[in-house]
Amino acid sequence: MTGTGGAPTAPERLLSVLAAFDHEHPALCLTDISRRAGLSLTTAHRLVGALTEWGALERDESGVYHVGLRLWELAALAPRGLALRQIALPYLEDLYEATHENVQLAVRDASDVVYIEWLSGRSAVGVHIRVGARWPLHATGVGLALLAHGGPEFQKEYCAGELASFTPYTITDPVRLRRALAEVRRTGVAVSDRQVTEDALSVAAPVRGADGSVTAAVSVVVPQAHAQVPVLVPAVRVAARGISRALGWQPEPG
Amino acid sequence: MTGTGGAPTAPERLLSVLAAFDHEHPALCLTDISRRAGLSLTTAHRLVGALTEWGALERDESGVYHVGLRLWELAALAPRGLALRQIALPYLEDLYEATHENVQLAVRDASDVVYIEWLSGRSAVGVHIRVGARWPLHATGVGLALLAHGGPEFQKEYCAGELASFTPYTITDPVRLRRALAEVRRTGVAVSDRQVTEDALSVAAPVRGADGSVTAAVSVVVPQAHAQVPVLVPAVRVAARGISRALGWQPEPG
Repeated sequence: MTGTGGAPTAPERLLSVLAAFDHEHPALCLTDISRRAGLSLTTAHRLVGALTEWGALERDESGVYHVGLRLWELAALAPRGLALRQIALPYLEDLYEATHENVQLAVRDASDVVYIEWLSGRSAVGVHIRVGARWPLHATGVGLALLAHGGPEFQKEYCAGELASFTPYTITDPVRLRRALAEVRRTGVAVSDRQVTEDALSVAAPVRGADGSVTAAVSVVVPQAHAQVPVLVPAVRVAARGISRALGWQPEPG
Repeated sequence: MTGTGGAPTAPERLLSVLAAFDHEHPALCLTDISRRAGLSLTTAHRLVGALTEWGALERDESGVYHVGLRLWELAALAPRGLALRQIALPYLEDLYEATHENVQLAVRDASDVVYIEWLSGRSAVGVHIRVGARWPLHATGVGLALLAHGGPEFQKEYCAGELASFTPYTITDPVRLRRALAEVRRTGVAVSDRQVTEDALSVAAPVRGADGSVTAAVSVVVPQAHAQVPVLVPAVRVAARGISRALGWQPEPG
């Protein structure tokens, strides 16, 4: 968060207050904020005051601060966040109706998948991912779909990095991973079979934008023991194409 | 946005860059940002750079800035935004399945309703409200439900202010409005009959949090010509109670 070598700039200090909030710390008192942002209590007090006045933070009756409604309104303008999710939601609901399984929409941010939407299915899977959560690309179905269409340069770079292992089935060998990605491009779907948790399987397909590039991925996550991949594949592909069309994508003729 | 009389402070300047983005201006070039934020091009350039580096803004290939994914991730922590919406979504979907009409979830922010979720029904109504939109409290069903439970002090203040008119049916007389609010409290539902547009009717019910206070409202909006209010009321009330229970509310015994 600090500038090149020097003390943090004024914008960096203000953003460090916002960055103090995360999924593990959604509610913070002033002392927590000052400690987590690395600011003096006086500075934290001043910046929190400005953010609260603006509506980026909200203070409850017990003096604890939360992320405010105004940030949420602003975030509703993010093309890759709520805006995408709003367009995709009817197709995600259709996919949910067709499968009654966990349905996800995700985008890529650097080397991570970020979940934009998550509709919970009735069957319990050991995977509980919240909206806004991040996950490495090479383990999840949506991540594999996004990585496979991330361009050769990016893939090369990603495969050369450390590939974290989550289960004995996670692909951590770069050669195997590249082969798997080629398969994803060939078939148009990505299957993550127990690569995140040992009881879950996901089937994902890429979502394309108006220019034809892959901008998101959609998937279902099901209990691995009863997974019927051949049944899930067409449903996921239809949903992904529906969202793509709604985003302005047109399939190539022929 | 400026401090008490003086020049804008550093936090105010940074927040003015974020405030340059709204529903009418979701994509801005640097010149637009500088103009809308009232900053010099040099200052705007520096602040936009800091926000982009942090991920609050994203720059596309044409040099245009959008709200970034990181703000969306942060906003996912807002208790009155995505967090509430995540808890409410299954009940909103049930209400949609039962009615196949437009379903909304909204909260109050000062004198406005802010829409947190909007599921679009199949029948076309002249009301097209987006997630994140604001509306005055006294016209919409959700607004009336929130105003009716906003406490006597707030109601008095609101009714004393200017009551904007949207159709000949909008209640703009404070005495009539107060009577309508008492009726909302008595019946447990709010009906807005052509008070927003002349072709729409909405039925809304309050959502309560763990402490019993009204924290949100849920509604359906239907074409007024075919509206069957007695049929909609129980569905909306059941959905509102379902969300309230999920938020930790417990009905009073007896």
